[in-house]
Amino acid sequence: MPDVPLQAPADAPPPSARTRVRRLAENARYDAATVRRIVDAAWIGHVAFTDDEGGVHCIPTACWRVGGHIHVHGSNGSRMLKALQSGREAALTITHVDGLVLARSAFNTSMNYRSVTVYGRFEVVAPPAKEAVLAALLEHLAPGRQAQVRAGNAQELAATTVLRLSLDEAAAKERSGPPIDDPEDLAWPVWAGVLPLRLAPAAPRPDPHCDPAAAADPPPHVRRWSGDAAG
Amino acid sequence: MPDVPLQAPADAPPPSARTRVRRLAENARYDAATVRRIVDAAWIGHVAFTDDEGGVHCIPTACWRVGGHIHVHGSNGSRMLKALQSGREAALTITHVDGLVLARSAFNTSMNYRSVTVYGRFEVVAPPAKEAVLAALLEHLAPGRQAQVRAGNAQELAATTVLRLSLDEAAAKERSGPPIDDPEDLAWPVWAGVLPLRLAPAAPRPDPHCDPAAAADPPPHVRRWSGDAAG
Repeated sequence: MPDVPLQAPADAPPPSARTRVRRLAENARYDAATVRRIVDAAWIGHVAFTDDEGGVHCIPTACWRVGGHIHVHGSNGSRMLKALQSGREAALTITHVDGLVLARSAFNTSMNYRSVTVYGRFEVVAPPAKEAVLAALLEHLAPGRQAQVRAGNAQELAATTVLRLSLDEAAAKERSGPPIDDPEDLAWPVWAGVLPLRLAPAAPRPDPHCDPAAAADPPPHVRRWSGDAAG
Repeated sequence: MPDVPLQAPADAPPPSARTRVRRLAENARYDAATVRRIVDAAWIGHVAFTDDEGGVHCIPTACWRVGGHIHVHGSNGSRMLKALQSGREAALTITHVDGLVLARSAFNTSMNYRSVTVYGRFEVVAPPAKEAVLAALLEHLAPGRQAQVRAGNAQELAATTVLRLSLDEAAAKERSGPPIDDPEDLAWPVWAGVLPLRLAPAAPRPDPHCDPAAAADPPPHVRRWSGDAAG
């Protein structure tokens, strides 16, 4: 099969009316490369959905991408996972806060961020794809760890529901860079700029019950984390 | 007036049926002190709401607490702010990701986090409270800066909508500490523990257009950020 490019061009139009960003539309992007870059940098997203009584919920949950879908998982008994199998529309949003943008005026004070909102209906991921998709979650969290841990058994796998949402209907929105002040404010005598924020690693904490040999020989994903925390 | 304690006790029951946490209910808390601690540490939240056609949305937005309410704001023309004034129920969730929890089994792999979900109907904050609440946002982002920037003028204030949501119906959920493995997995020969994460400050970036005198003499909220970034 030829290598079909998955990415829409960087100036791709919104895939649907509801994904079209209205506020600060100049910060919006709809191309797959931008969407995937933001999604792949995330550990969690927030899922908005309605329940059988029409109540609306907003629940944080681990999420990860495999191909053109974003995935969530949990216990079969989860209220969220049951509602997401109702066939009703839902939305999943990922947001990274990158900094506080201190302008010279209160009004132009802002934040830097990267976000993606995905609209659609979740669908169940059944075996055998289910196991592969769960392995991809562990690979996302800790590359290489899948081969080192006690793998899920039949009972654990059966107790877990995995759902996926197509990234076809996704919108990205980003702000970066310095404040944008009104021209007449530029001479205002106050420090202006960005206070950057980053979800940063800190030194790994071995479980107190960790086998001493295992604690003394952390796997690459833990050593890399230590390096990032130190650097 | 006597100093009425706002906090429900730490073992307070859920304030309503929809705030009662079902999954891992042992991680849930409903007391105001816990809710406020998590809310006050946040720069943004995610708001779930429905539109006039019944579509569901999940939008990230700056949020901040004043007293017993959490606030959001934006342009009068914002789709979200218009929908939140519809009288329909909404939900706002704040989440901090504190680390990846690497268990000895794939199934018990988890995350550490702190989250709060608030349910209810947003209401408009009108002048004169509106100005005070916007000043509280800037104070939350950059303590002391309100007195240093060009304050909002009548036109800017009129173009901005401020909404508030009572914290009366809020639920907190937290996980911290090491992995909880099944007893029979404790001898599994793999490193187990927590890879901590923290939304950390990095070195401030002055606006290239910053007045040299102002750039050379950053205010305390910028100097403090530098110190936190260095330390």
